[in-house]
Amino acid sequence: MSPSRLQFQLDAQASGSRARATTFRTLHGTIQSPLFMPVGTQATVKAQTQETLHESGSQILLANTYHLLLRPGPEVFKKLGGIHKFMRWPGSVLTDSGGYQIFSLPHSREMTEKGAVFQSYVDGQRILLSPELSIQMQRAIGSDIMMVLDQCIPSTADEQAASAALQITRRWAARSLAAREDSPQSMFGIVQGALYPQLRRESAEGLMELDFDGFAIGGLAVGEEKNEREDVCELTAALLPSDRPRYLMGVGTPLDVLEAVHRGVDMFDCIIPTQVAKRGTAFTSRGIVELRRSVYKFSEDRLDPSCTCPVCATHTRAYLHHLTKTQEPLGWTLVGQHNIHFYHQLMREVRQSILEDRFLPLYKERREILPIEDVDHPVTPPKRTSTKVEHVGDYELCGDPPTIRHSATARIVCTTPQLDATTESQIIQHLRLPADSPPLVVWDTHLSAAATALGVILLYEAEAAKGPVRPLHLVSFSDDLSPLRLALHHKRHFPYLRHGAADTLIRRDVWESRYCVGLKWTLVQDNAGEGPAPDVVVESTREPLAGEGSS
Amino acid sequence: MSPSRLQFQLDAQASGSRARATTFRTLHGTIQSPLFMPVGTQATVKAQTQETLHESGSQILLANTYHLLLRPGPEVFKKLGGIHKFMRWPGSVLTDSGGYQIFSLPHSREMTEKGAVFQSYVDGQRILLSPELSIQMQRAIGSDIMMVLDQCIPSTADEQAASAALQITRRWAARSLAAREDSPQSMFGIVQGALYPQLRRESAEGLMELDFDGFAIGGLAVGEEKNEREDVCELTAALLPSDRPRYLMGVGTPLDVLEAVHRGVDMFDCIIPTQVAKRGTAFTSRGIVELRRSVYKFSEDRLDPSCTCPVCATHTRAYLHHLTKTQEPLGWTLVGQHNIHFYHQLMREVRQSILEDRFLPLYKERREILPIEDVDHPVTPPKRTSTKVEHVGDYELCGDPPTIRHSATARIVCTTPQLDATTESQIIQHLRLPADSPPLVVWDTHLSAAATALGVILLYEAEAAKGPVRPLHLVSFSDDLSPLRLALHHKRHFPYLRHGAADTLIRRDVWESRYCVGLKWTLVQDNAGEGPAPDVVVESTREPLAGEGSS
Repeated sequence: MSPSRLQFQLDAQASGSRARATTFRTLHGTIQSPLFMPVGTQATVKAQTQETLHESGSQILLANTYHLLLRPGPEVFKKLGGIHKFMRWPGSVLTDSGGYQIFSLPHSREMTEKGAVFQSYVDGQRILLSPELSIQMQRAIGSDIMMVLDQCIPSTADEQAASAALQITRRWAARSLAAREDSPQSMFGIVQGALYPQLRRESAEGLMELDFDGFAIGGLAVGEEKNEREDVCELTAALLPSDRPRYLMGVGTPLDVLEAVHRGVDMFDCIIPTQVAKRGTAFTSRGIVELRRSVYKFSEDRLDPSCTCPVCATHTRAYLHHLTKTQEPLGWTLVGQHNIHFYHQLMREVRQSILEDRFLPLYKERREILPIEDVDHPVTPPKRTSTKVEHVGDYELCGDPPTIRHSATARIVCTTPQLDATTESQIIQHLRLPADSPPLVVWDTHLSAAATALGVILLYEAEAAKGPVRPLHLVSFSDDLSPLRLALHHKRHFPYLRHGAADTLIRRDVWESRYCVGLKWTLVQDNAGEGPAPDVVVESTREPLAGEGSS
Repeated sequence: MSPSRLQFQLDAQASGSRARATTFRTLHGTIQSPLFMPVGTQATVKAQTQETLHESGSQILLANTYHLLLRPGPEVFKKLGGIHKFMRWPGSVLTDSGGYQIFSLPHSREMTEKGAVFQSYVDGQRILLSPELSIQMQRAIGSDIMMVLDQCIPSTADEQAASAALQITRRWAARSLAAREDSPQSMFGIVQGALYPQLRRESAEGLMELDFDGFAIGGLAVGEEKNEREDVCELTAALLPSDRPRYLMGVGTPLDVLEAVHRGVDMFDCIIPTQVAKRGTAFTSRGIVELRRSVYKFSEDRLDPSCTCPVCATHTRAYLHHLTKTQEPLGWTLVGQHNIHFYHQLMREVRQSILEDRFLPLYKERREILPIEDVDHPVTPPKRTSTKVEHVGDYELCGDPPTIRHSATARIVCTTPQLDATTESQIIQHLRLPADSPPLVVWDTHLSAAATALGVILLYEAEAAKGPVRPLHLVSFSDDLSPLRLALHHKRHFPYLRHGAADTLIRRDVWESRYCVGLKWTLVQDNAGEGPAPDVVVESTREPLAGEGSS
């Protein structure tokens, strides 16, 4: 391999651990690792300003090529001179290749040696995402570090599928590198191979024959167990050259990151710090704090007394609790700002401990504290009173016959798996297309206790029993799984949930029927991603959001 | 009345307008008016940080007693020491009484002399909001300025209902004041009375018997026409004592605020700047900019080149367009930040112009610009096909730019409010007589679209701003109000009609200026009566009567 464009330098290597501290240079500055990269999917990190991101010590932001390709589009980056100018970000930017998003699209994509064809959620256009298009787009974005287009598969894929994906990823890697042409941007290869050590080795060796400036470990954090992930991470990191950055994609919680640093990884990205901030989950030096708990209603404490971020310098837990309960955007902003600062602070402390060769004790101490929940205010298990009311989140079971009720508003959740006649006939009409038609996409805008979704599924099964029907993809959106979780505990009262689809959905975010081939149900939580565009939208009885009220 | 607790001081009074600049002190600092108060419904202004609110020059935030009563509840404010500490806000806070929210609840409330009973959206509890509870809650919140509990009714209520609401509001005002007890917080009374001048007077006089520190004009911006609002606002402001702040509740757009300053109001609040920011609507020195329009996709322009806010210093319209299109929270935050800054900047400029006695020209200039939409990138109007011509009587709107045409003869109605030089100098000469001379009578022989009449009125106002002038009585003759009615439907195309005089004339046959005492305009229809004999006759371009032809 030629020398990395990143002027990589190994600063220190911890004793009794594979943890290391490194320094390298991108087109926009000097980077010190280990480091965490906040995710700016659409050229903005959710609910954060570039100013606070910079002040918290963010060195590199990750941007998503897939989303930016669709909106604002390469032409805007070309006209405005790249993402740094576009979003006024003085630091570095890493772009992914778009592969992950394409391969997590539930359908509407076709894979060939050329690339993956998918349909734009913006204008419905069909687009071939090839290695060349991905790199062209990343060049237009003007990121400091580009990623090769890889074929992502579930980490639980079988060996044959994993091997095939690896082969194509190797060929696409070479094409990606060629497509860089004379750009001064750096490029990382991505090691695949699912959970098969031999495939991971084969993938790493293949990529190391090419002139990459760094290497990523892909295909993890996509369904495997925690210990499986850690084993494969450790094994793969050890295969990689010591003179290039190592990046574990899409990982993870502060604890996950700490574990991977220990296993020799330098770089991380994850949506977790801003995603969980929206529901009031904060990472602190005393473990995880769930700010929506009423135990914080009167708390004049700082969120994390050991934290140096502006949020902890300014606000009380009582105010953050209030903002979370009322779902005010400022709550999302402030808790997210703290969480990002917390990740960076953890990485800075880890780096300092490596430089001073005291990483191992720090690691052992922190791995105990990081995952603890609300250590100072442990959750008391709910008392079972004689009235037998049971709770999950903000929902409770009550009445006779039992219903599920939103505690604050007293609104009853729908538990009747029936569609109205109009929707039903609309779906039936759509299903009458030939079986090889593209799937009918049905959006269930509010999962709630899954009654409406089960209505759709039962209707499909009834129609499929009568004769050929086209495939159906049901997408349920939810920002709170509590009513469904509660209902699943009481199937005796809600017999429609004996179907089993909802159990699978809640565990894996996706359910596919084994009997009606072509019937699929996916879950989109907290607007975390976009489903395919709908042909039919079913309206469910929706509970009001807290704070919505009738003001 | 005892002296206001606010150490109120009148700094300046504009010439030719009721606009005024004042200074007063709350418990948290010195306030300069005219001023705009951002709305922090739940102890946070939507998607804004306290830091940027402070930096933009926010002096007072408005908080909603109704929402804060329900969540976090008075107990939290008592424990944490009031709203300033709770949300870490160094400036002043004004709390409303909760009345507006209760009375806009569509149902689930009962009204008695005691107060209003409503059901909490948080826990379903039934609560009696009495004047005493409202003030107790506002004392717990610890606002600088409290509002009395009033009974809000639609501005379009009938006289009997309006009178009843006014009586109860008067009694509640006394109870609210008594409930303040020894609190050092200021308290404002609220003038009600819907659109009935006599009721407004009765309400104001009743409240002025009590020791309020300022007065609000309530019951507007709730369904009435713009000119009705402006008339009632002007009339009510004139009834209020000149040594206390005057606050117009819930108003409005920048133009609405400017109009009300002109009519003697000092303080405003409205959710508009943050509410419209969510969908990408920005107020600028060049009018309204709709950032979601694709015309801004590539725009490297600042949002408002004349604006000094951090958003305009940093970001392009292209980035703000992208954030708006993708519905990213950062878009809401940034556009809202700019909008709030814009309101404050407008108020600062207005104040400065009052202090330097040049408010009237500023007012006239700004009222033209503020409501224009996307002036630099005008929306292409939908093509007017022959079926889309609009008619009133024998007149139609047509052409581009639109003109008003007599259908039968195709003759164009004059819509330029200009006098010929001879007439102008003739009138000016007549006006130079002493101010106690009998009124100069001007005959406008043909009202048409009131362009000539407005020419006379604007000339008089300009002369009156320069120094003392004698009264003027303008008499317009008309046998067909159709062209004026049609033009009044299209003020966007005929901006001289924004003046408002013509609206009043057509409704009441007479208009009298409230700023230029002595300026009067009357209408004589169908030769039904005769005006006083003229000193000057102005000739307007006269359309032929239908059937007269253009021979």
